[in-house]
Amino acid sequence: MLPFSRITIIGLGLIGSSIARAVRVHMPTARLTGYDADPDVRAIADRIDLCDDITDTAGASVIDADLVILCVPVGAMGAAAAEIAADLPADAIVSDVGSCKEAIAAALADALPNATIVPAHPVAGTEQSGPEAGFATLFHGRWCILTPTAQTSAAAVERVAEFWLKLGADVETMAPDHHDRVLAITSHLPHLIAYTIVGTASDLEEVTQSEVIKYSAGGFRDFTRIAASDPTMWRDVFLTNREAVLEMLQRFSEDLTALQRAIRWGKGDELFELFTRTRAIRRGIVEQGQDDAAPDFGRSHQ
Amino acid sequence: MLPFSRITIIGLGLIGSSIARAVRVHMPTARLTGYDADPDVRAIADRIDLCDDITDTAGASVIDADLVILCVPVGAMGAAAAEIAADLPADAIVSDVGSCKEAIAAALADALPNATIVPAHPVAGTEQSGPEAGFATLFHGRWCILTPTAQTSAAAVERVAEFWLKLGADVETMAPDHHDRVLAITSHLPHLIAYTIVGTASDLEEVTQSEVIKYSAGGFRDFTRIAASDPTMWRDVFLTNREAVLEMLQRFSEDLTALQRAIRWGKGDELFELFTRTRAIRRGIVEQGQDDAAPDFGRSHQ
Repeated sequence: MLPFSRITIIGLGLIGSSIARAVRVHMPTARLTGYDADPDVRAIADRIDLCDDITDTAGASVIDADLVILCVPVGAMGAAAAEIAADLPADAIVSDVGSCKEAIAAALADALPNATIVPAHPVAGTEQSGPEAGFATLFHGRWCILTPTAQTSAAAVERVAEFWLKLGADVETMAPDHHDRVLAITSHLPHLIAYTIVGTASDLEEVTQSEVIKYSAGGFRDFTRIAASDPTMWRDVFLTNREAVLEMLQRFSEDLTALQRAIRWGKGDELFELFTRTRAIRRGIVEQGQDDAAPDFGRSHQ
Repeated sequence: MLPFSRITIIGLGLIGSSIARAVRVHMPTARLTGYDADPDVRAIADRIDLCDDITDTAGASVIDADLVILCVPVGAMGAAAAEIAADLPADAIVSDVGSCKEAIAAALADALPNATIVPAHPVAGTEQSGPEAGFATLFHGRWCILTPTAQTSAAAVERVAEFWLKLGADVETMAPDHHDRVLAITSHLPHLIAYTIVGTASDLEEVTQSEVIKYSAGGFRDFTRIAASDPTMWRDVFLTNREAVLEMLQRFSEDLTALQRAIRWGKGDELFELFTRTRAIRRGIVEQGQDDAAPDFGRSHQ
């Protein structure tokens, strides 16, 4: 038995199109409907046969759905929910994939006061965007975090959990505000720092952009991957999870200042102590299968 | 004709052992001698047959060398050079692989006033350390930067360049102080920031270390790779290239503060503008073969 049999995906970018592909693989009998606000994206989705049906309006896409997943940028969630409000079946469950759960839960509850809402966040992605960037195994071995509120029925949470398990993900549940703090440090701050250093490097006068590119294998290139992520998505994340991001950023800046001071005053022991401690975290990530065990992320060294 | 026929490598870690393996592949007739200050490393090198000969002293390793490459941490270069001074043949060329060229050039010239010195820096590596971590293709398609001074003969530079070309690297020449500024932004600052954010994440109270590890696929894991690099090597780099690192760090901090302000005041346009600009650099790096074109660094998504 499938947890859902008529699934609608609104927003057919990297995540939405990966869900579509994974549903096709793991729930081949489910009917799959897609919608995207951008007609060009709808045309591509049609051409690559991403769903059984691509509709021309958001409302039409949900008419007989039992699960609707909103895969639009965080700042567009409320408007997307409002667009489907009139056509949403009473027994449908609405979920999403956004990276800021407290604000999204509030926006969805506002737009769909009578709907059953199970906010979700699959912690997975690549630096690529658009309907053609998705792939069916994106969620394999990754965590999907559900952030139900006191109003969410346990049965609805259970069905959404089952959906993600079928796509190959592991499922965890936590409070929306805790999610937002966890993701501020594990995802939002890393992106912010990566965007910053790539910006800093491209603004130098005495080191040319061509030199930055040429010698990027010394470490810089690791940062450029996530700094190539979708600009709209990330603008929305920072504006929406503002408080948690600013707090993590403040802690990071303090730690960076301490390190700066250690370098200025030649305190090698302090540097060595930190540089030793940080190895353990990497080890944990590899041991728990959250990153490639092969050196250099498994990049091919031909 | 080989540029060198009797090659000595002092320091048999990731880089030294990769050079040894690459020499075996690309210059199989060259005689290869190795030395490491750590007897355990020498024993491993012996066991895995890394070189034709592993000597028990640095002096013995250079007796009939025509090329000696110092592959020790930046802070140990001067002492390693002093150890071989008495035994170094008059016509041997001494080179190194360190990441801070101005200080190393001075230390080598001090310890070996009559030697022919061609400082070099292959911009390549992984997060792993030790003689068993090396591999022959590490330098394929990577840049090796030579930083000869006015005193270095053009013929010696030419031979060292030929050596690196044979290992599959591309070769570039630049002034030592310019090298140190280029590497401060493309390698040293990225490592410093990676070490910092991993430290920040592991010191939080309300987010556990286990949560940081679990949800690291949201971006954080990209930083943990270079934060797992060798602590001694990196302590030395920061203490040695202090001025350039502090200057780049200052610029980064200013840019980060500007972004912090944009988030606090909700200036989405500023964020969007930066996030769009940073994509171009990534594109350049991939186009020039300095990183994997596959999404997610080509990590396997099973």
